[in-house]
Amino acid sequence: MHDRHPTSQLVTNGEQLLLVDCGEGTQIQMNRYKIRRSRINHIFISHLHGDHYFGLVGLLNSYSLTNRTEALHLFGPPMLRDILDMQFKAADTKLSFPLHFHPLGENELILDEKKLTVSSFKVQHRIPCWGFLFREKVKLRKVDPVKAYQAGIPPEFFSKLKDGEDYIKKDGQRILNEEVTKPAPDALSYAYCADTKYDESLIKIIAGANLIYHEATYLDDQREKAIERFHSTAKQAATLALQSNVKKLLLGHFSSKYEALDVFREEAAAVFPNVEACKEGVTYLA
Amino acid sequence: MHDRHPTSQLVTNGEQLLLVDCGEGTQIQMNRYKIRRSRINHIFISHLHGDHYFGLVGLLNSYSLTNRTEALHLFGPPMLRDILDMQFKAADTKLSFPLHFHPLGENELILDEKKLTVSSFKVQHRIPCWGFLFREKVKLRKVDPVKAYQAGIPPEFFSKLKDGEDYIKKDGQRILNEEVTKPAPDALSYAYCADTKYDESLIKIIAGANLIYHEATYLDDQREKAIERFHSTAKQAATLALQSNVKKLLLGHFSSKYEALDVFREEAAAVFPNVEACKEGVTYLA
Repeated sequence: MHDRHPTSQLVTNGEQLLLVDCGEGTQIQMNRYKIRRSRINHIFISHLHGDHYFGLVGLLNSYSLTNRTEALHLFGPPMLRDILDMQFKAADTKLSFPLHFHPLGENELILDEKKLTVSSFKVQHRIPCWGFLFREKVKLRKVDPVKAYQAGIPPEFFSKLKDGEDYIKKDGQRILNEEVTKPAPDALSYAYCADTKYDESLIKIIAGANLIYHEATYLDDQREKAIERFHSTAKQAATLALQSNVKKLLLGHFSSKYEALDVFREEAAAVFPNVEACKEGVTYLA
Repeated sequence: MHDRHPTSQLVTNGEQLLLVDCGEGTQIQMNRYKIRRSRINHIFISHLHGDHYFGLVGLLNSYSLTNRTEALHLFGPPMLRDILDMQFKAADTKLSFPLHFHPLGENELILDEKKLTVSSFKVQHRIPCWGFLFREKVKLRKVDPVKAYQAGIPPEFFSKLKDGEDYIKKDGQRILNEEVTKPAPDALSYAYCADTKYDESLIKIIAGANLIYHEATYLDDQREKAIERFHSTAKQAATLALQSNVKKLLLGHFSSKYEALDVFREEAAAVFPNVEACKEGVTYLA
């Protein structure tokens, strides 16, 4: 409706792309936005309502038809594996690449890579549903090689400089770390809160995140309907963002009954000013 | 690729719409072409390769979300029911309308309605696959009410006039049917041959059809590949159309490796001139 498509998000971390949910038509939208889909090695499916995963099997199929060989890690509700297996069996499909399925369970660390971690957390929806917290690992200080050289620090000590250590010269002179390095950039975090009703138990999980996405299916005059359907209002999303002390809030999953979306941003901004209503094809920075 | 979408066709018969196959994004395309999807009461799925049915579950979901109440008849490979059941179970979906599933089996009459019949027929593909033959029922002659009235024929005899009977007046005078009626329009037929390798056993099934759709995944210089993959070439499709003495041939299911499609029409036209390469969003008349 109103030219909006079902849910899918790309989380980028350097060269790495992580796909979160995959509604019908996601691969068509990827073509439109010239996404290099071969860079996606991790897919996270929050729950098994169609608007969040009906495009997944087609995407996996397309990877296979184009002879992908790189392993793909898929995180999703346990039943997702059964659904995919049955569809592959019906089509006599043998994927061209290893597909590693990781069933979601409790709140836990589900991915621990060199540059980031991902944790899953349960949210309150009509069926089992998970959110995902993406955290960059603490970054290293940046060495100024010219200053370090002039201070007489050998290159083999640079990795310790990056960790913040001072250098003690042979004559006992201490070179302070901050004289030859620049501070590490902030390690950023992003929480995808999936489809959920307003749930204050999420506060401790997403507290202090640089960016969160929270659904806002309705405006607050439809709060009763939101509760009944395990969804949230824009005001509720903003309230949670405020209580969680996050830096920025993104709203999405707007009911197709609404054509214009500014009202969502306005309702939320009255509670939490640093908020945007997500538009398709736009990149939001943490 | 090349802005082409996976397979789906609408067969129209008067006000009635019948959907044949339903690849990913079909419902989005329906919106684009302003299809009145509520008029679709019959859906036919030829086989369980994704490009022919990955959009089905989303369409059924959308019908339910918009509170459709009218029954829908779904004809497809037996395993389709299991796939849909599992997806509905995972989403805790209770459809708002009755969905009657009719598993495809042998070559048989699968629908017999007031104005048309539909038969299924097996084709030769890598997995079980069916084509569909749509036949209008024999139409009735059209009564000219003024002439019939002038000839002294009472209105209660008009239904027999439509069937072609002469009228015998009380004085024994015979009014010839053709004096007061016009011939019935032709009853049209359309055969959808699905995904198949070249198969002359289809000739007796589709013989004399007004219109057939036959896949042409490749050009004839790729005939070996076509055979290996249980697909056809444009020349093979044309050869079958010629041998079947049909009136018109539509080609489709072109491999995404080809950008321009005129070559398919040209290759086929050398064998069977009344041929078109299907374009999206275009209506072809039988």
